Amino acid sequence: MNPESWDIVIIGGGPAGLTAGIYAARARLHTLLIEKDMIGGNIMYAELVENYPGFPDGISGMDLTRMMHDQATKFGMETQMTEITNLTIDGKNKFLKTSEGDITTRAIIIAGGSKRQSIGAPGEQEFTGRGVSYCATCDGAFFTDQPVAVVGGGNAAIQEAMHLARFASSVTLIHRRNELRATKIEQEKVFAESKIKYAWDSVVTAVEGGETVESLKLHNVKTNTDSTLPVKGLFVAIGFTPNTGYLKDILSLDQSGLIPVNQNMETSVPGLFAAGDIRTGSIRQVISACGDGATAAVSADKYLSADKYLKTQK
Amino acid sequence: MNPESWDIVIIGGGPAGLTAGIYAARARLHTLLIEKDMIGGNIMYAELVENYPGFPDGISGMDLTRMMHDQATKFGMETQMTEITNLTIDGKNKFLKTSEGDITTRAIIIAGGSKRQSIGAPGEQEFTGRGVSYCATCDGAFFTDQPVAVVGGGNAAIQEAMHLARFASSVTLIHRRNELRATKIEQEKVFAESKIKYAWDSVVTAVEGGETVESLKLHNVKTNTDSTLPVKGLFVAIGFTPNTGYLKDILSLDQSGLIPVNQNMETSVPGLFAAGDIRTGSIRQVISACGDGATAAVSADKYLSADKYLKTQK
Repeated sequence: MNPESWDIVIIGGGPAGLTAGIYAARARLHTLLIEKDMIGGNIMYAELVENYPGFPDGISGMDLTRMMHDQATKFGMETQMTEITNLTIDGKNKFLKTSEGDITTRAIIIAGGSKRQSIGAPGEQEFTGRGVSYCATCDGAFFTDQPVAVVGGGNAAIQEAMHLARFASSVTLIHRRNELRATKIEQEKVFAESKIKYAWDSVVTAVEGGETVESLKLHNVKTNTDSTLPVKGLFVAIGFTPNTGYLKDILSLDQSGLIPVNQNMETSVPGLFAAGDIRTGSIRQVISACGDGATAAVSADKYLSADKYLKTQK
Repeated sequence: MNPESWDIVIIGGGPAGLTAGIYAARARLHTLLIEKDMIGGNIMYAELVENYPGFPDGISGMDLTRMMHDQATKFGMETQMTEITNLTIDGKNKFLKTSEGDITTRAIIIAGGSKRQSIGAPGEQEFTGRGVSYCATCDGAFFTDQPVAVVGGGNAAIQEAMHLARFASSVTLIHRRNELRATKIEQEKVFAESKIKYAWDSVVTAVEGGETVESLKLHNVKTNTDSTLPVKGLFVAIGFTPNTGYLKDILSLDQSGLIPVNQNMETSVPGLFAAGDIRTGSIRQVISACGDGATAAVSADKYLSADKYLKTQK
């Protein structure tokens, strides 16, 4: 059986991939989007997205995702729910193996996002989007004058805590050690902020609440004691793992496993583009991921037009 | 009288500036947006934006603009309709002179866009958004199976014509000379496309129609004769002029007058950021301009947080 053949395959159905799909399909490229889990990606957990431009009253991640997918589908994008198991490149031809069959394409936009590292505490998943968040820029404003906590001890955690201190009544930084992994300047800044308190040598053992988060169970690993911390929000800031494992032999990744790109979202391999949280330097916001997706699609279109291999849509 | 003092001033009220405003104001920065003409910028001429993700049925540029401005205003952004006449920088302090008074700020996001070069023919302005367009990626899909024309002779015009050939029944390339200014490869590509016809040595002297464009008046500058070309769309592809004149002494601009930035939208001057069509390498799409605006605001926020000079909103 001949493998399915496409002008462009988009790997990942989050905002970056969906926008790439809108642009590629509307430009009449024969466009396939592949998603292994759930169309929408991490944004599906957001009950209210307040900072996506064009929705002054906010919109749920689920609704925004559905509308973006409808839009790309309307222009002719097709979607397959499957997982890429292998990617090989032979000059201008790219071959993908999936659990559903083989695919060939002439351009690929990698928009597989990254997986938020979770602390693995009971309640964390259940309360995601209802008090548990992985992004202070996204959700900090929802916790005005309320107590929140941040888990983590690196620069990311400090930045999240500093950002949250603008909104929250108090911010407790929970760290499993008794000192921060951060530059001296960063540390001075966070120690100077009176709203930020510390739970040293501590881990979160449970997230508890009713409709939304009400408290955290903490365990002190030095004194071996347990305590309860009343908070309305928990921000987990212990890192992200990009979904780039299958790309190691094809692209050079940065030390975090992210894909370096230039401003046109071109990777080091001609015909391979990357967009959204999976690329180096992303600010991890829906709107910027969408911008990346459009840019990647425009670049891919130019790459394809340079060839004569364009297979236009029916 | 003391000049007005802000954390951040955004210059330009198009999609890039409005998104920067949403992000800056929501992060509780004391945020001012300055616009000299019309909130929305070039997008205000778009009767239907089909490729802004989240609106599967499309949305008018006017409605999209209004909603973005409402959103930023809701988070506390203020707006002044005035023109910047001078910008000076003294270390971390930036001083703006406007026709309405003096302003000081610690960070500036330059999002003033660029002015589309117009051919200056009668009817061109009147039919903008109703047949006259400056962007094939944006509007090409509206002219499926209809005759269109492109004005211009450079690489941009060729790319517009090639893109339109995917949709239109025919594309007439109107050029005031009898050869294209383009690389040999580009020329071969365009001459191989059977849908593209040529009106050499010709200029458009009028755009005519009723509700929408119906025909163009052409004048042949060699034979000194006039003719009528029936088309439904006219794509003007003779360039853009970025609104960067007042920045020449402060920033090094590229040869087109655009502002070079890195992936964080940082210019060569600390505390000055650029976003949208005014920066080098923009794909000139609403969604990518918005992505730029968010990135610039996040970068500006980091720049400001590194200082102690933050003046939080009331």
